[in-house]
Amino acid sequence: MIPPLHWNEEAGRVDLLDQTRLPVEERWLDIETPEQMAEAIRMLRVRGAPAIGIAAAYGVVLALREPSADPHEAVRETIAMLATTRPTAVNLFYALDRMRRVADAHQGASKEVLRERLLDEAHAINQEDQEAGRKLGEHGLSLFQDGMTILTHCHAGGVATSGYGTALAPLLMAPERGVALQAFVDETRPLLQGSRITAWELTQVGVPATLITDSMAGHVMQQGRIDAVIVGADRIAANGDVANKIGTYALAVLANAHKIPFYVSAPLSTVDFDTAMGKDIVIEERDRQEVTHGFGRQTAPEAVTVYNPAFDVTPAHLVTAIVTEHGVVSPPYKANLAALRPPLP
Amino acid sequence: MIPPLHWNEEAGRVDLLDQTRLPVEERWLDIETPEQMAEAIRMLRVRGAPAIGIAAAYGVVLALREPSADPHEAVRETIAMLATTRPTAVNLFYALDRMRRVADAHQGASKEVLRERLLDEAHAINQEDQEAGRKLGEHGLSLFQDGMTILTHCHAGGVATSGYGTALAPLLMAPERGVALQAFVDETRPLLQGSRITAWELTQVGVPATLITDSMAGHVMQQGRIDAVIVGADRIAANGDVANKIGTYALAVLANAHKIPFYVSAPLSTVDFDTAMGKDIVIEERDRQEVTHGFGRQTAPEAVTVYNPAFDVTPAHLVTAIVTEHGVVSPPYKANLAALRPPLP
Repeated sequence: MIPPLHWNEEAGRVDLLDQTRLPVEERWLDIETPEQMAEAIRMLRVRGAPAIGIAAAYGVVLALREPSADPHEAVRETIAMLATTRPTAVNLFYALDRMRRVADAHQGASKEVLRERLLDEAHAINQEDQEAGRKLGEHGLSLFQDGMTILTHCHAGGVATSGYGTALAPLLMAPERGVALQAFVDETRPLLQGSRITAWELTQVGVPATLITDSMAGHVMQQGRIDAVIVGADRIAANGDVANKIGTYALAVLANAHKIPFYVSAPLSTVDFDTAMGKDIVIEERDRQEVTHGFGRQTAPEAVTVYNPAFDVTPAHLVTAIVTEHGVVSPPYKANLAALRPPLP
Repeated sequence: MIPPLHWNEEAGRVDLLDQTRLPVEERWLDIETPEQMAEAIRMLRVRGAPAIGIAAAYGVVLALREPSADPHEAVRETIAMLATTRPTAVNLFYALDRMRRVADAHQGASKEVLRERLLDEAHAINQEDQEAGRKLGEHGLSLFQDGMTILTHCHAGGVATSGYGTALAPLLMAPERGVALQAFVDETRPLLQGSRITAWELTQVGVPATLITDSMAGHVMQQGRIDAVIVGADRIAANGDVANKIGTYALAVLANAHKIPFYVSAPLSTVDFDTAMGKDIVIEERDRQEVTHGFGRQTAPEAVTVYNPAFDVTPAHLVTAIVTEHGVVSPPYKANLAALRPPLP
């Protein structure tokens, strides 16, 4: 397990891994104030939707570290301030909403009681995410056998969540379960999440990992070195089409051509039952600089056009199975995903 | 045409494009001495096997620019010196050999006559390569129609040769023949020859070019934006299996899955009739730093293993046609390539 942060009970603060320093340096920050936590979220020192939610929840607790005239007012102000740190992370608003409800339920409580209840809620949010990660890992591991080599793309691992991640969960969990897995890791251009973060996490837990450029995946499959592919998902349509990091679709086609199983691992919350199929998903295009100035140096002429889609859509028929916290879902996805759909509130 | 160098008759020197400055700067160097030419070859300011041969040939002529006691001795010494610049470029030794034979045939000649004959031979080497490039371009163009969009990988273009290149020849020639082609260019990790050089050359001649990361090629094929793929070759086995820059095999599988023609363009000298099939070709593995420090900054942890093969092998059955200077070769390749085999001397 590679948690992105943890509550330091003795010091009453959060110890937070500065992800912007990876993979060169493993630097932990002492986060003692809500303002420091806001800065860490804003500057992507902590990133990944579940991890941001957990960080914000503990950030609310930090509002009560220093003396204040009105602790309830301090908590309200901190929640409002933390909500401005990232514009689109659903987990951030979900976590802050839970913290607000706890505060509202303890209007007349002393500062000490309020702090204890808020800390309990932050621990609960953290715990629930850990539990989901553990289940994803266990269900994912049920697909793999000892000695297998697994190819993965981008980063869907520990520091984006409370510790196990989604696609990476079975790989990160394998050593503690005594399952010997090896990994090939696509570097994942343009932002290199594979080489910068996935490769770092796997080596941290002792899973033998081999880094390749994205263009090498077909070649290693051709050599018979890959037993399965596992990736995460940004969104899964109701029919099982999968939107994920650019390059995922090519991997699925290559896996299919080499008769290698292609798995997607994601919590059920990733399934968007209101999106019928992949072609309804709008593909975000990102800045040309990510391609032309990858890591500080200009590597393409100014005059060239750049196409930089952030993700692509893999049709359901190329997906062998979808791993969720509720178990492994096989085709037909439309029916089998709908069967897991939580009842509307 | 994008020649990597040209003879400046008025100044009696070579004007040479410093390819190490691309794509940020188009800087031309005045090469006036054999030593300056040796430095340019050694430092990869001029690169690509045919271009190195042409550069060395003109480098021999430069031996006679300054007064010397024994011009024949000066030429001999220069040939020996230039032969040490790059260890494995066949074209380098071939070109220097031709220059040596011309010198030997004019043992008693004056410095002026010797210089004229050597310059003629350098021009001839340059001319013959240009002619081969023109033929590759014309045969390649015969496969494309106005309005098509062509995907290419790595760099097999002008500055690696005398001006048209191999895979890039039809694209670089299209504007002057009035054929409107567009290009998608894979950046080609790890060394980014696609973004650094191919993208630059295409924009120079006015071919609309769109740069993508290697992982995006499958996605743009899925969108129906690619009409054909064309790549070069490092070596072609007698059965038509093609060794080329890493990533070529994945492109061929993807093209096949999308029913897009996949062409290989290379001079007949690239066909190794002594290699029966692709699996007999040894794949060079290169330094891990190319992957972990590709953009000047460390982007992967020290602890990770790196696999960095320089090329891969595409089986003949995925190749729609092989374009040579003698025409377009269709399957079955074993018979049809053998029919073009030059008689043994």
